[in-house]
Amino acid sequence: MRRVSFEDMNCSIAQCLEVVGEWWTLLIVRDALFGITRFDDFRSRLGIARNVLTQRLEHLVAQGIMEKVPYQDNPVRYDYTLTDKGRSLWTILVAMRQWGDTWAAPEGPPVESLHKPCGHTTTIQPTCSECGDAVHLRDLRAVLGPGAHDPDFLPARRA
Amino acid sequence: MRRVSFEDMNCSIAQCLEVVGEWWTLLIVRDALFGITRFDDFRSRLGIARNVLTQRLEHLVAQGIMEKVPYQDNPVRYDYTLTDKGRSLWTILVAMRQWGDTWAAPEGPPVESLHKPCGHTTTIQPTCSECGDAVHLRDLRAVLGPGAHDPDFLPARRA
Repeated sequence: MRRVSFEDMNCSIAQCLEVVGEWWTLLIVRDALFGITRFDDFRSRLGIARNVLTQRLEHLVAQGIMEKVPYQDNPVRYDYTLTDKGRSLWTILVAMRQWGDTWAAPEGPPVESLHKPCGHTTTIQPTCSECGDAVHLRDLRAVLGPGAHDPDFLPARRA
Repeated sequence: MRRVSFEDMNCSIAQCLEVVGEWWTLLIVRDALFGITRFDDFRSRLGIARNVLTQRLEHLVAQGIMEKVPYQDNPVRYDYTLTDKGRSLWTILVAMRQWGDTWAAPEGPPVESLHKPCGHTTTIQPTCSECGDAVHLRDLRAVLGPGAHDPDFLPARRA
């Protein structure tokens, strides 16, 4: 079953889902951020079928998220490593991890992040690029940006 | 085609994908954060089939992400609103939006966030809960947490 494409949607979230929304893809990126580079290591960690993993890795390479670098000839074998575009998905994965830690980890977080400069286990806090304060959802209002096509995309707000 | 379940994986990212990893689900949550509550409004904004939308909304209600509140009888009709568990997905959606703005929005961001307390259009910056500094990927090291089952889940790091 081929899903619909989100490619024509004028929405950055849809564009992100177009690239990483397939089953498995974000778990492959997670393992790549952990330092996994080899096909067989991804496969054994994820318990994923060879053909599905091949397809997902090729999609990630085609989208510029990963690049493949041969590490042996005859037969040729590749390391799969993240590009800058791929590494910059880390904020999404950390946000997903922290959500899962809060709502779906009754025994506590399986994995935590150590912030090397300060030496502590850290929770990422969203802060404002302009004033530096911590940001809460209630403090945000969505507004149309320069790339908006449809002035009615955001619903009218009641006063 | 029913996908595999990530429910048995001891990973908070997999648990999050188990809840919101279906096609469309995060776009439904996006629209709910914009203030959309009605079935027909979700449907017309997303261009999604009725049966698929029904299934996704029921899944979100079953998972405690949304709740349905009748707003009329005969026939009964519901508002779908986010719970606290659902609203707390906002950090994931903002991270996805910012990634898409950077890598897949050649005309500029379609939507931006206004930080109401300071009055500026903001970009969310990840900072450390312990020292307050901005966090970059290179500053983080994944470590096993109290909920870890498998001591070998994180690959050994070369010195």
